[in-house]
Amino acid sequence: MRALVIANNELRVEERPTPSPQATQVLVEVASSGLNRADVLQVRGVYPAPPGWPADIPGLEFAGVVASVGAGVRSLEEGERVFGIVGGGAHATHLITTEDLCARIPEGLDIKVAGGAPEAFVTAHDALVTQAGLRPGERVLIHGVGSGVGTAAVQVARALGTDTIGTSRTEDKLRRAEKLGLGIGVIAGDSMADDIGEVDVVLDLIGGDYLMTDVEVCRPRGRIVIVGLLGGSKSTLDLGAVLSKRLTLRGTVLRSRPEFEKALVTRAFEREVVPLLGRGELEVVLDKTFSLDDAAAAYDHMTSNEGYGKTIIDMTG
Amino acid sequence: MRALVIANNELRVEERPTPSPQATQVLVEVASSGLNRADVLQVRGVYPAPPGWPADIPGLEFAGVVASVGAGVRSLEEGERVFGIVGGGAHATHLITTEDLCARIPEGLDIKVAGGAPEAFVTAHDALVTQAGLRPGERVLIHGVGSGVGTAAVQVARALGTDTIGTSRTEDKLRRAEKLGLGIGVIAGDSMADDIGEVDVVLDLIGGDYLMTDVEVCRPRGRIVIVGLLGGSKSTLDLGAVLSKRLTLRGTVLRSRPEFEKALVTRAFEREVVPLLGRGELEVVLDKTFSLDDAAAAYDHMTSNEGYGKTIIDMTG
Repeated sequence: MRALVIANNELRVEERPTPSPQATQVLVEVASSGLNRADVLQVRGVYPAPPGWPADIPGLEFAGVVASVGAGVRSLEEGERVFGIVGGGAHATHLITTEDLCARIPEGLDIKVAGGAPEAFVTAHDALVTQAGLRPGERVLIHGVGSGVGTAAVQVARALGTDTIGTSRTEDKLRRAEKLGLGIGVIAGDSMADDIGEVDVVLDLIGGDYLMTDVEVCRPRGRIVIVGLLGGSKSTLDLGAVLSKRLTLRGTVLRSRPEFEKALVTRAFEREVVPLLGRGELEVVLDKTFSLDDAAAAYDHMTSNEGYGKTIIDMTG
Repeated sequence: MRALVIANNELRVEERPTPSPQATQVLVEVASSGLNRADVLQVRGVYPAPPGWPADIPGLEFAGVVASVGAGVRSLEEGERVFGIVGGGAHATHLITTEDLCARIPEGLDIKVAGGAPEAFVTAHDALVTQAGLRPGERVLIHGVGSGVGTAAVQVARALGTDTIGTSRTEDKLRRAEKLGLGIGVIAGDSMADDIGEVDVVLDLIGGDYLMTDVEVCRPRGRIVIVGLLGGSKSTLDLGAVLSKRLTLRGTVLRSRPEFEKALVTRAFEREVVPLLGRGELEVVLDKTFSLDDAAAAYDHMTSNEGYGKTIIDMTG
C-alpha cells in the first residue's frame, strides 16, 4: 500500500506492506479521506495519535471498499462500500479499522466525496443532537460556520427544524453558508452579540473569548458545546450568568475517545445522518480535492484558513 | 397570621391577614423554616422574589401542618404534615403553597427540624444526582462542605456509595463533616488541588477562582455543578482542559425555576431523599434555632459565615 507518512514534521508518500485484518478488523481500500485540523497538528508533532492507531500516518476519516475481513467480522463482506472515523491511518490507500467503526455508504453518495462526511457530520450531530439535545424550534448559533464541521452543523440543524445563526470572519463564507440553509449570517467581531440575538444552543468551533459572547447570548437553560479552540484556549467565564441562566457548557473531542465510544457515535451517524446524506438532504461541502501524491499541498491549503468546507484526498488519483 | 416582613432593607414581625387557599393551593401552618443565603440577599434588596410569590416575606422552605386546602386539591388533607420549597413567604406562621410543592414529612422526622431539610437536600440531590449524574463508585468533591447544602451533599453522596472529598476554610467544619461521612477533608486554599486528587464530579458552592481547581482535578468526562458564588462571579476557564477532558460545567439555581420545575424536583426529593430522612440515614444538620420574634438575629448569624449546617426559625416559639 501507499501511505502519507510523517517524518521529522514533514510529509512524504511511502510504500508500506499492506496489513491483513485480524478478528473483527476490516481492511478498507480507501477511495477518499477528508483532511482535518487534528491532522495538521499531528504533522507538527503537537497532537500525537491515540494509542492503538498508526503513529506516523495521519487521517481521521475514510470512505472506501472492504478489501478483506478478519475471521470474527459478522456484519460486512468484501466489496461493500463503507465510511467512518478512525484514530489515524486513513491517509493511505489501505486502512485497518474494525467493523464497529464502519457505516455503509448510501447508494446516492459518491465514494470520492463520502470520505469528507464522517468527521464533520459525526462531530456536528454528536455535539448538537446527542450532547446539546437540540430540539425542533430552537435557535442555534454556530461559530466558524464556513469550516467542515460548521457547514455540516448548519445542515444538521436545518434538517432538525431549528433556526440557525452563523458567524465567520468573511462575508463570502456567510453567503455560501446561507445557500446551505443558514438563517442569519453575522460577521465575527467584538460586537456580534447584538446581531446574534438570543439562542438556545451554541456550537463553538473557535473558543477563546468567543465564550463570553456565547454566555451572553444564551437563553435560560442554554447549552454551549465547545468543539474547537482556534481562537485560544483560555477565556473569562461569567459564572453569575452561568448560574442565573442555568447554562450548561461542555467541551468535546472525537479523536481521543475510546473505540467503544467511537462505535457508539458511528451507530448514531448511520441511523440519523447517513439516510439524509443518501437522499441528498445533507451534502458534503467540497472545498478542494488533492491526489495522494499532492497531499502535502492539501495540508498547506488547510493551514491557510482560506478553505470553505472539506478538503479531501483522493486515494485513487 | 404573623410574618417576618422586609421594609427598607430591615426585618420586622407584622400581623397580616391569614390567606385562604384557592384551587390547588394549600394553606400550611408553618412549624419551622430554614434560613438561606437568598433570604439574606433579598433583605438587602439585591435578590427580589420570583413572580407570583410574596415580595416582602422571605423564606424558601417550610415544614408544617396542612391547615386548609383549596377546592381543587386532590392529594392532601387538613392535618397532614408536609414540607417543601417555595419561592418565598415561608418565614411566617402561615404560608400559601400548592399541593405539587408539598412532600409528606416521614414519621421519624421532627417537624421542628424538617423545615431545614428541603432547600439543602433538594439542591444537593438535584445537583449531584439529577444534573451531574453521580454514580456509585465515583469520587465527588464538595466545596464549602460546612454549609447547609454542603452537609446535605456529603450525606447524599455517601448514601449513593460514592467517595467524598470536601473543602472548607476551617479545620473544625471539616472534622464535623467527617462525622457525617466525609471521606477526606481539605483546607481550602491555593494549593488544594494536590490534596484533593482526581474526582468525577464537583459540587461547587463557592465559585470564583475555585473553578480553576475544579477543572484541574476533574477526570475525563467529569461534571462540575456550580451552585453558589460566595467566592466571586468571574473566573478564568481553561478551555483546553475542558475540551481534552470532555468536561461538563453547569450552573444551577433553585429559586428562580418555574413552578412546574419546582414540582418536578419536589417529586424527586419525595421519592429519593425523604425515605432516607425518615430512616435517619440522612440528617438535617442543625446549627441554631431562633424564634420568629428573634428572626433578625438568625439573619445576622447567617451573615457571619460562622454557622455549620442549617439555621432554622421555629414559628411555634
